[in-house]
Amino acid sequence: MALTVMKFGGTSVASIERLQSAAEKIIRKKEAGNQVIVVVSAMGKKTDDLVSLARTISAHPSKREMDVLLSTGEQVTIALLSMVLMERGCKAVSFTGWQAGIKTESAHEHARILSIDTSLIRPHLKTGSIVVVAGFQGVTEDGEITTLGRGGSDTSAVALAAAFGAAQCEIYTDVTGVFTTDPRVISKARKLKEISYDEMLEMAYLGAGVLHPRAVEYAKNSHLELVVRSSFSDEEGTVIKEEVSMEKSKSVRGLAFEKNVTRVTLLGLPNNVTAVSHVFDAIAAKQINIDVIVQNVLDEARTSLSFTVDQDVLSDILNVLNDKEGVLGYQQIIHESHLAKVSIVGSGMASNPGVAAEMFHALAAKGIKVKMISTSEIKVSTIIDDDNLVPALDTLHETFHLAEEESLSL
Amino acid sequence: MALTVMKFGGTSVASIERLQSAAEKIIRKKEAGNQVIVVVSAMGKKTDDLVSLARTISAHPSKREMDVLLSTGEQVTIALLSMVLMERGCKAVSFTGWQAGIKTESAHEHARILSIDTSLIRPHLKTGSIVVVAGFQGVTEDGEITTLGRGGSDTSAVALAAAFGAAQCEIYTDVTGVFTTDPRVISKARKLKEISYDEMLEMAYLGAGVLHPRAVEYAKNSHLELVVRSSFSDEEGTVIKEEVSMEKSKSVRGLAFEKNVTRVTLLGLPNNVTAVSHVFDAIAAKQINIDVIVQNVLDEARTSLSFTVDQDVLSDILNVLNDKEGVLGYQQIIHESHLAKVSIVGSGMASNPGVAAEMFHALAAKGIKVKMISTSEIKVSTIIDDDNLVPALDTLHETFHLAEEESLSL
Repeated sequence: MALTVMKFGGTSVASIERLQSAAEKIIRKKEAGNQVIVVVSAMGKKTDDLVSLARTISAHPSKREMDVLLSTGEQVTIALLSMVLMERGCKAVSFTGWQAGIKTESAHEHARILSIDTSLIRPHLKTGSIVVVAGFQGVTEDGEITTLGRGGSDTSAVALAAAFGAAQCEIYTDVTGVFTTDPRVISKARKLKEISYDEMLEMAYLGAGVLHPRAVEYAKNSHLELVVRSSFSDEEGTVIKEEVSMEKSKSVRGLAFEKNVTRVTLLGLPNNVTAVSHVFDAIAAKQINIDVIVQNVLDEARTSLSFTVDQDVLSDILNVLNDKEGVLGYQQIIHESHLAKVSIVGSGMASNPGVAAEMFHALAAKGIKVKMISTSEIKVSTIIDDDNLVPALDTLHETFHLAEEESLSL
Repeated sequence: MALTVMKFGGTSVASIERLQSAAEKIIRKKEAGNQVIVVVSAMGKKTDDLVSLARTISAHPSKREMDVLLSTGEQVTIALLSMVLMERGCKAVSFTGWQAGIKTESAHEHARILSIDTSLIRPHLKTGSIVVVAGFQGVTEDGEITTLGRGGSDTSAVALAAAFGAAQCEIYTDVTGVFTTDPRVISKARKLKEISYDEMLEMAYLGAGVLHPRAVEYAKNSHLELVVRSSFSDEEGTVIKEEVSMEKSKSVRGLAFEKNVTRVTLLGLPNNVTAVSHVFDAIAAKQINIDVIVQNVLDEARTSLSFTVDQDVLSDILNVLNDKEGVLGYQQIIHESHLAKVSIVGSGMASNPGVAAEMFHALAAKGIKVKMISTSEIKVSTIIDDDNLVPALDTLHETFHLAEEESLSL
């Protein structure tokens, strides 16, 4: 009998009514002859509410106690969803993270899953129960409650699917799948039938918030097929898997973007092996995330280093860099806000060197100035003015024929 | 170093502000040189809210899933209270029921505590942490989450105090102690300095809702001193212990009462050994609680049996009795509602046979008709008309000098 893992996120379980809709999908899957493990998040904005409550007590509440607090959110959902399933005549049983044997590292608030003891859930699957597991949480060897951090419930679902050898892991969410770009911004955006793990990873890292990159990486390493689909309709979703045979003709699969980007440039940094690492050590010590990094050599003695950060953390960054001016030895700091990042993503790019050039041509033709460039095997990111974001997405969507139906030609 | 267990109920932890007040009391206790275990309930009406939520799903939700659901309430409180204590500079650490090693029977929704593995908490007490434990919950040998039912958090506190050999178990609540009778009804009601376990048990069973009888029984069996006191002031509370040396002069210690009582009488029940048990078997099968029971023999063949129930269950009772009329063999059912139960309680009564007579005289002098009487070693209960409740309490409070200060005479 095939085993499927179905994961329902916060908006998909935000009310009793939504639990009822989820239950319908779950029961249909069960009645189609599958064993079913369901993974759920906390209802709606419950986690955010609990975080806010804790913040009224302390600016930096104990991470251990935050995990004790936040893990109650999913625990409420598993109990209620199990009740809903039973009320509809199904056998169902709930499992918290610790009950499901989801062992993690002891890093509170962002623990990684180490192992899952499948012997705890397996007997319930065998007797035909739908097993409802709390996502986002686990337990250490010492019996401490942990949570997995951002994207935690997706990761729980993928880890369970991998541990139980599931045929598929379905991620039910509030969108119908993965799109060529955000359909709320570009109306021509088209839902993809399939996307590769690597492409999905780039899309996820580049701001397409459908799936957390952690979960995609886990799925990739476990060769587990993911499906992203809607909780609110029966529309087919997007399959994320190794080979995207149908679409190799297209070198660009999607556009990712991000707003509120600020660029910081250090001019006249010493051109030696340690200068750059000193800069990022200082910033990392303050827990600030850096995105795109570009370095240029000015002459033998000096380089210029630019990187992008979220606009909100600019003042923190400047404080760090000013504090460390003596150690870092740069000559000047300049910065520019109100920028956006636009990226093209596609695994076909690696074998198609003209793609980046095509991107720059398209932007130039619309008079859009590119301020930074960063590339990887399967993506090209550009930093542009915020005002140019929508025109840039428009022209790139057109240039790379993203609105057109997928063809079977290879 | 002395160990104290402090229990804070729902109203005492209903908001962050109240958690702050509780924290003050806890820290004062700690700074006075005690090891401290704190036991908490769910915040305010949280448990009721969760029950209501479950009832929107099912009229009879799975008891196992109810326990998974309800146990989140206390888990939220332990995390938040620990944060509050840490924010005030204390070492604090939270424990759910399962983390604290509180092993119970597998009877969901009303499990009894079987054992507590003190080795899990002990190291934290030794290193000076305030240990905050979720009341009302435990775990079975098989790792199933259980709850303890009504009075559960009091019971958790007493069980922990007994297991750890605590000097005292303090129950912080929204009243300042145990009163001679309900001060909201009889303004002259006086707070008792001490009361014995047995007296407290009778008071509790008779409707004085300060402490659950289960917890009192557990304390009695463990020879553990309980203190009931206010979360909202520093007033001294009431000590519940074996010997009440100071107050033996008084045979009556308090008045308990209950409203909404209905009396049901079966006339002409066969006078044989099984008839009465058949009646109560039939009622028990419907999970209906019976209170006072009185049986009179009419003649050799027939008896009359009266019992009191909560007014709300009258129609259920009548349905059961009518259904079973053939089996039970009674001749007629009569019933009367709008009754009240008034009881005098005091361990001095056993050795003072005139007390019951004094009670009946006092009631008769006010023209209050007694409709049923039931006695035990340390209490006399009477059933009277609801309208007579306050006059009855008034005259009994006066008759037994309950408003007068306790004396030291023996």
